[in-house]
Amino acid sequence: MADLERLSFSIERPLLERLEKLREEAGYVNRSEFLRDMIRGRLVDRAWELDQEAVGTITLVYDHHARGLNEKLTDLQHDHHEVIMATTHVHLDHHHCVEVILVRGRAGQVRAIADGLQKQKGVLHGGLSMSSTGKELA
Amino acid sequence: MADLERLSFSIERPLLERLEKLREEAGYVNRSEFLRDMIRGRLVDRAWELDQEAVGTITLVYDHHARGLNEKLTDLQHDHHEVIMATTHVHLDHHHCVEVILVRGRAGQVRAIADGLQKQKGVLHGGLSMSSTGKELA
Amino acid sequence: MADLERLSFSIERPLLERLEKLREEAGYVNRSEFLRDMIRGRLVDRAWELDQEAVGTITLVYDHHARGLNEKLTDLQHDHHEVIMATTHVHLDHHHCVEVILVRGRAGQVRAIADGLQKQKGVLHGGLSMSSTGKELA
Amino acid sequence: MADLERLSFSIERPLLERLEKLREEAGYVNRSEFLRDMIRGRLVDRAWELDQEAVGTITLVYDHHARGLNEKLTDLQHDHHEVIMATTHVHLDHHHCVEVILVRGRAGQVRAIADGLQKQKGVLHGGLSMSSTGKELA
Repeated sequence: MADLERLSFSIERPLLERLEKLREEAGYVNRSEFLRDMIRGRLVDRAWELDQEAVGTITLVYDHHARGLNEKLTDLQHDHHEVIMATTHVHLDHHHCVEVILVRGRAGQVRAIADGLQKQKGVLHGGLSMSSTGKELA
Repeated sequence: MADLERLSFSIERPLLERLEKLREEAGYVNRSEFLRDMIRGRLVDRAWELDQEAVGTITLVYDHHARGLNEKLTDLQHDHHEVIMATTHVHLDHHHCVEVILVRGRAGQVRAIADGLQKQKGVLHGGLSMSSTGKELA
Repeated sequence: MADLERLSFSIERPLLERLEKLREEAGYVNRSEFLRDMIRGRLVDRAWELDQEAVGTITLVYDHHARGLNEKLTDLQHDHHEVIMATTHVHLDHHHCVEVILVRGRAGQVRAIADGLQKQKGVLHGGLSMSSTGKELA
Repeated sequence: MADLERLSFSIERPLLERLEKLREEAGYVNRSEFLRDMIRGRLVDRAWELDQEAVGTITLVYDHHARGLNEKLTDLQHDHHEVIMATTHVHLDHHHCVEVILVRGRAGQVRAIADGLQKQKGVLHGGLSMSSTGKELA
């Protein structure tokens, strides 16, 4: 972990009190940590806007009885094997599966892979969680 | 404006450098102002979560030839005259109007008014911008 | 209003029942209208993604005692007078104002104007509601 | 998979043409599938609003050298073992890990677990992707 510096900024007293309330409600004990996490959240948003290297988690819910779907999803993932880090599969019930695919690549590429998977017939829901390689956040 | 205090917090040097870059890209000259605006953004989100007093801007795009729509929208607004502060209307073309309705009330009430207007037949798009009375942000 | 056509699509019975429940909860009487509004919502999102002509509503909450702020906000708006259609101003209390600025232009330009206004010192909150000229939605 | 019914609705010709363009750009061959996926997206949003049973994917990026963090994250997950279905861990570089936690429970509970993990010191970013058990979407 990098060395810590002290950064000071000016803030109106009532705004400071409201910041303290926000921090408490979010369950943070440490105010510095709360402010740093706010900054980190903005950095991740910005990295995705600028199409930088990023980590994304794709969540697919699908009916594994849909004809040819398993093969199709596997094929699509293999087309991008160089950026897909891991896939986890859970059986939800007799019909439904959820699959979580961890991707590391340029933000736009991760988004394109998510779109390509989600549009397959039999995929009932697709979601993308935009995250980070951590390098920009330390 | 309230008195300013100095607040200091610890932050890793690389994260501080990235904060500076974020600030520059957002066009802020003053770092304190940038941090305060980040905190204020969170406070507004939180006020809406907690259903506190808020200001909301409802934007409606509609076809003023739709039968009875003008009367309906006016009636609905009058039902809430005690919380609607102002309405501005602009003619976009021969068919289309945009109407902006400034509401001050509990967050949930503002949302309900927006939903009630948006669902009217002939309203092509409705949007709600969640803002603040400013009292919590100074 | 354009002529109406009938469009039919296949849907599983349970999904159809859930669609009906969604519609009722949203307060729509007419199912066609509910489906059309869903499509229109997607079209507006897409127009903003593709940086097409759009209508945007900028909401600013500010302290009008902040030195030079009124002049600054007015100057900035005049720099874009050719795309700003109307501005409405409401006095919230002794200190705070809300100003709603209706802009018609390319999506990216509307966003840039919103950013430029929001970053001014004394502006406590800025929001942008993304809407449409209506032409694409009829 | 459930039996398919035909559902028809009325739509203006120009809006129909724009729907076709949206569908093509999203890469869907089948229009019914495109409309059904739009409805399903709304159902998932609604299930989270109503705090129904849901599936959520929590993505954490953290520095595994942060003192005691691994143990803390593991302890917190064990506190909720009855709703956590699977956890996948990937080493991003010498310092950083990404962990993806698949949770099935009431929406509010999934959100609370995500918040509790994200606020830990050393967790650089936390994200929650809101998904579904699939039962409501078939």
